[in-house]
Amino acid sequence: MAQLEVSDFAQAVIDRMGECKDARFKQVMTSLVKHAHAFMREVDLTPDEWMAGIQFLTETGKKCDEKRQEFILLSDTLGISMLIVALAQARGAKALAEQPGERPTEATVQGPFFWPGAPQKELGDDIGAGLGEPTLYHGRVTDTSGRPIAGCVVDVWSGDEGGLYDMQKGDEMSLRAQFRTDKDGNYRFWSIKPTYYPVPGDGPVGRMLDKMGRHLNRPGHMHMMLDAPGHEKLVTHIFVKDSPYLDSDAVFGVRNSLIVEFPKHAPGKAPDGRSMDKPFYTAKYDFRLVPSMR
Amino acid sequence: MAQLEVSDFAQAVIDRMGECKDARFKQVMTSLVKHAHAFMREVDLTPDEWMAGIQFLTETGKKCDEKRQEFILLSDTLGISMLIVALAQARGAKALAEQPGERPTEATVQGPFFWPGAPQKELGDDIGAGLGEPTLYHGRVTDTSGRPIAGCVVDVWSGDEGGLYDMQKGDEMSLRAQFRTDKDGNYRFWSIKPTYYPVPGDGPVGRMLDKMGRHLNRPGHMHMMLDAPGHEKLVTHIFVKDSPYLDSDAVFGVRNSLIVEFPKHAPGKAPDGRSMDKPFYTAKYDFRLVPSMR
Repeated sequence: MAQLEVSDFAQAVIDRMGECKDARFKQVMTSLVKHAHAFMREVDLTPDEWMAGIQFLTETGKKCDEKRQEFILLSDTLGISMLIVALAQARGAKALAEQPGERPTEATVQGPFFWPGAPQKELGDDIGAGLGEPTLYHGRVTDTSGRPIAGCVVDVWSGDEGGLYDMQKGDEMSLRAQFRTDKDGNYRFWSIKPTYYPVPGDGPVGRMLDKMGRHLNRPGHMHMMLDAPGHEKLVTHIFVKDSPYLDSDAVFGVRNSLIVEFPKHAPGKAPDGRSMDKPFYTAKYDFRLVPSMR
Repeated sequence: MAQLEVSDFAQAVIDRMGECKDARFKQVMTSLVKHAHAFMREVDLTPDEWMAGIQFLTETGKKCDEKRQEFILLSDTLGISMLIVALAQARGAKALAEQPGERPTEATVQGPFFWPGAPQKELGDDIGAGLGEPTLYHGRVTDTSGRPIAGCVVDVWSGDEGGLYDMQKGDEMSLRAQFRTDKDGNYRFWSIKPTYYPVPGDGPVGRMLDKMGRHLNRPGHMHMMLDAPGHEKLVTHIFVKDSPYLDSDAVFGVRNSLIVEFPKHAPGKAPDGRSMDKPFYTAKYDFRLVPSMR
């Protein structure tokens, strides 16, 4: 074998894939190796720094369990998760460009706090558990041509009044549920007005963010995942317009079109007919789903 | 915050480091983020592929324990460890360029099988444990000006006659030891002629290599780590010249200058005076260490 020099190693690794039978895997690994080596050459990475990287990755893996995904947190805080969401949405937009209709609702990161199998509730139910500031969420789900989507599953989840998610506190689900749109595509439910909160900072990613000089906070948001037959699944948030950190979300997830007014109302009759004996908020948001592309 | 598009996210992450107080960390993270995002944009990575990556990294972390470092194996098999070694050696060569003397011995990867605290042995001792094909290793350690280095610690380790290292088999050290050069810089010890072997293939990295269409093998080699006061520590191997896989080392560690003839000898008196009743090999190699650069 010819003696490899600093600039030769990446190509040598790539050349070793002559027998690779998966063309897409080969393409991905080729680009990964090329960029990983270019990064290390560019900064002239030292053995001590390399070892710090190995230890960081190892610790990040060790920190993962059923309820904590430190690698997703790493991806989120380095803007990678949001890049993946944006790439997918750009591919979708391209596919849609030739069809009539409006732009679909923007997606954002799923985050590490989705918990499959949330309880199924009736439209109008209150999942706020008496916490925080009660808020009526309501709106309509249509496709990009404006046709209502009935029976769309709307999975919602948020942190509590202090910004903590149920799975950070224990084994009991709270502040999460699944609803189904009615025949006209409408949804409505009560929960709390979500507050800003820090991403988990007690692991290697928290230390990295600290060393980067960054805060850990995300602006207040309600997670919403919409799934209807014949349509692409949408994972997104509704962001609270008056929340701090909208300009510096720790995971880069804010989209302008997802920022929503939460008007405050005096005690009395809410738009859905519920009688409220304390002040409450409303948040109205209409979703547009993309027809299935498979 | 301005709406971020696909090509904006990397810079947005970099811009978030305004308060970073460690200039080198900022430089490394800037380059890392730039290249990581460029990779994902270049291949238009899908959410499913991203999730496969997250799961791969998580499993790789879970596979690590005191005796198994799957992230180092990943780094090794992607040519990254050897790139780091080559970058360090190139920096050293630059620093040496203005000094007289010969080129120092080339370094290579440490690999995952170094076990600190190997037993201290006397020059000429046999650590081969009666396994495989007995081989006398001998030579001299000097600095780049040819001055002998007395008392240099020579840490050596290899797999057994089947290519398995002690730590892959249990808790007992074997086929590893520390020697010290004599007053003229000479070392000599008996061990076995090392055979080629596969890197551990029962983890996520093994699956990756299989998918890349690659074999797992490393050519036969004796690990040697040389450490003497006033000199840079050298981590290297001696490769067996007639070994298979010299042209396709799974970790890209072969350097031409480290390939050594292992001549075979009939039973009789060995060069160190030992009387051998079966055939044996000899391997002679002289090391040149770099004066300490700190």
